[in-house]
Amino acid sequence: MWVTPLIERKRDRGALTPDEWRELIVEYTAGRVPDYQMAALLMAVCIHGVEPAELAALTAAMLDSGERLRLDHLGIPIVDKHSTGGVGDKVSLVLAPLVASCGVGVPMISGRGLGHTGGTLDKLEAIPGFRTTLSAAEVQRQMERLGCVMMGQTTDIAPADLRLYALRNATGTVESIPLIAASIMSKKLAEGIGGLVLDVKRGAGAFVPALEDGLELARTMIGIGEQQGCRTVALLTAMDRPLGRACGNALETEEAIAALKGEGPPDIMEVTLALATEMLLVAGVEADRGAARARVDDALGSGRAAERFRSMVATQGGNPAVVDDPAVLPQAREVAVHTASRSGHVAGVDPRTIGRAIIAMGGGRRTMEDVIDPSVGFVITAKPGDRVKAGEALASIYARDPEGIRIGAAALEQAIGIVEDRPPASLPLVSHRVTNVGVELIGG
Amino acid sequence: MWVTPLIERKRDRGALTPDEWRELIVEYTAGRVPDYQMAALLMAVCIHGVEPAELAALTAAMLDSGERLRLDHLGIPIVDKHSTGGVGDKVSLVLAPLVASCGVGVPMISGRGLGHTGGTLDKLEAIPGFRTTLSAAEVQRQMERLGCVMMGQTTDIAPADLRLYALRNATGTVESIPLIAASIMSKKLAEGIGGLVLDVKRGAGAFVPALEDGLELARTMIGIGEQQGCRTVALLTAMDRPLGRACGNALETEEAIAALKGEGPPDIMEVTLALATEMLLVAGVEADRGAARARVDDALGSGRAAERFRSMVATQGGNPAVVDDPAVLPQAREVAVHTASRSGHVAGVDPRTIGRAIIAMGGGRRTMEDVIDPSVGFVITAKPGDRVKAGEALASIYARDPEGIRIGAAALEQAIGIVEDRPPASLPLVSHRVTNVGVELIGG
Repeated sequence: MWVTPLIERKRDRGALTPDEWRELIVEYTAGRVPDYQMAALLMAVCIHGVEPAELAALTAAMLDSGERLRLDHLGIPIVDKHSTGGVGDKVSLVLAPLVASCGVGVPMISGRGLGHTGGTLDKLEAIPGFRTTLSAAEVQRQMERLGCVMMGQTTDIAPADLRLYALRNATGTVESIPLIAASIMSKKLAEGIGGLVLDVKRGAGAFVPALEDGLELARTMIGIGEQQGCRTVALLTAMDRPLGRACGNALETEEAIAALKGEGPPDIMEVTLALATEMLLVAGVEADRGAARARVDDALGSGRAAERFRSMVATQGGNPAVVDDPAVLPQAREVAVHTASRSGHVAGVDPRTIGRAIIAMGGGRRTMEDVIDPSVGFVITAKPGDRVKAGEALASIYARDPEGIRIGAAALEQAIGIVEDRPPASLPLVSHRVTNVGVELIGG
Repeated sequence: MWVTPLIERKRDRGALTPDEWRELIVEYTAGRVPDYQMAALLMAVCIHGVEPAELAALTAAMLDSGERLRLDHLGIPIVDKHSTGGVGDKVSLVLAPLVASCGVGVPMISGRGLGHTGGTLDKLEAIPGFRTTLSAAEVQRQMERLGCVMMGQTTDIAPADLRLYALRNATGTVESIPLIAASIMSKKLAEGIGGLVLDVKRGAGAFVPALEDGLELARTMIGIGEQQGCRTVALLTAMDRPLGRACGNALETEEAIAALKGEGPPDIMEVTLALATEMLLVAGVEADRGAARARVDDALGSGRAAERFRSMVATQGGNPAVVDDPAVLPQAREVAVHTASRSGHVAGVDPRTIGRAIIAMGGGRRTMEDVIDPSVGFVITAKPGDRVKAGEALASIYARDPEGIRIGAAALEQAIGIVEDRPPASLPLVSHRVTNVGVELIGG
């Protein structure tokens, strides 16, 4: 395949045909187009963008580069959720068993933490024994028995995306809305889902902080999903502060288990309920928002959601006692309380500072090869707008050693601003609902 | 070296520091920065451009990646000429011995034909035995004895450019004025010259057809040259039709030898005299244009220029009899005369069609590995604006076989447009003179 003329066309703001995108991805995945040609093309895409028809063809080609889960024989609707990533966001751990316990299948493929954000697989692996690498037969059996599975991307799932993502990471071509959308959607559509709910984060801690960019990303992914016959809805949620109180793998797993019993912090419960309700609606098991919400409340209140989580943990090799006893999770050697250095109002809690501190404390990755310590992190009880007194506890720090405590304290000092006057309100937690029809304001 | 942040900065229209450019080129040339990262960066440069300080640093780093010729001990000024490439442009073959015979050293490093244009090395190698690959010792000896040498780029000369040029060719990043300028200037400055005359082509057959782009390329190269202490001047010349009559390697060498005797076609003589005069002026051997021009005329008229060419051919292993007897050059097996299919005026002679036909006839390269037949080509006597009668000869075709004649005839039919009314004038042959002071209109 002669790629240079295609690169030149994209450089000059032209478009590739759907057939050209298809052939390019086939040849690249087969190793017959070199990385340097793909890198030049990706940079041109990053700068000039792509047309909707190009994006549809690119995503379809990435999806078709691998296998699709076949779950039709289960006879239940199959849906999933995807979040664009944040700090303290453990909602996936709650949603998969919760929605499965409402009679909807959730074959969730997740990622690991990279950059300042955490990853669902790392949180699950904080549970001793939990395996996130499953064979195709294991996935089928577990979906038949439990209706949910939580696992990592295998080389069978969108292998073109695996190669492209590594290349983008090394060539400064990650921050492109169409490339982000194609990457996410090719993986999610490979799960064979009929419905998808997107949690698009906005605010300083999001990969795409600006509202307008978040809306564009949501609309772009919805366009791809609907074109592939997957009912797709997005909620825009706040990531100008961490979600919930716990930040760090084992601490977040503990908080997720509390949420499965209906006992999570209010913001975690609000986001979980909003997303779960949307998932039941796109699944079509309830036609009306009130009924969907009631079914979710019942699954939490009756204990069915927590039991489904227990079964999933046991089936995937983890210690199911974690559901009743958080002490099963790895415990940090050092714990310290962080207090307010002066009285005033909490102006904000910067998620990026928190996320980077967890990495520095050994709880996150700088490269994909780093081994992480799941026990480290923070439980931050202070929320933006809170009135605090000097000496009052704002957070707890969990670390491997005194040096980790020191790093954590410095980060909290920097991340939690305290000001005299009441600060302007932070972002509404769930602010917009986006569908292929339009945008609906739902918060603020 | 962590290159990704530099790529991201260039993607976002930022600038790299001179130190960053220097380190990047050092690391890339050493093979420690992968091609895919450099390809992404080059695409961002291609789209967003670079600042003058960046271009100066990039060119200096490419220059410093290799060796520089040391010719100071010769005690004569050292200059060169570079053309941005065209069809029928054999002026380099005339200029090197001509200017050397005027007491100015010319260590000319040239290239091969690629794309629709011919290359000086291919034309020289039409002379049986002529070697364009010389050792450093051979270059020194020949410069001492003859004051001129014509050769190819070795791996000692700007090796960063060799690698970057191959990468640009494969990644759609050739057409960038700063990258073209850095490539040309890093090679030319490696010759250790104190003066440089640029022949920047304009019109349909040029790599940079538009006047404004040609002027920008000229100004960019002049800026780099002057900054490196090399007196640099550019002439803008016409490439809306082939230069001279002969197109094709052996045929062009024959025409160049005629020009060395003062007997070339008028347009070849005009461009040769203009460039040679500028070369003597930048060399500083004459302070005044009239005196410089008189010295050039004398070198041609006295036979000294042709004798210098004969010595150079002999020293570089070629058959010096070529100067007196063009039959020494490879002769085409098939020759045919192409005539006007109708009466009228010649509207134009399209250089790209001519250049591509020579490649199709076996006289040029599709890839750097192709072996070429030096005998094929055209002698086109028709010039734009000429009045012609149906059946009148417009050109001769030189080919390997009847199929080549057929290809050549079809190309001429397409390239030479004949119209009823007198066509608008073609571009003035030598139109602008550009220096670091400004642009002077000199033709039209």
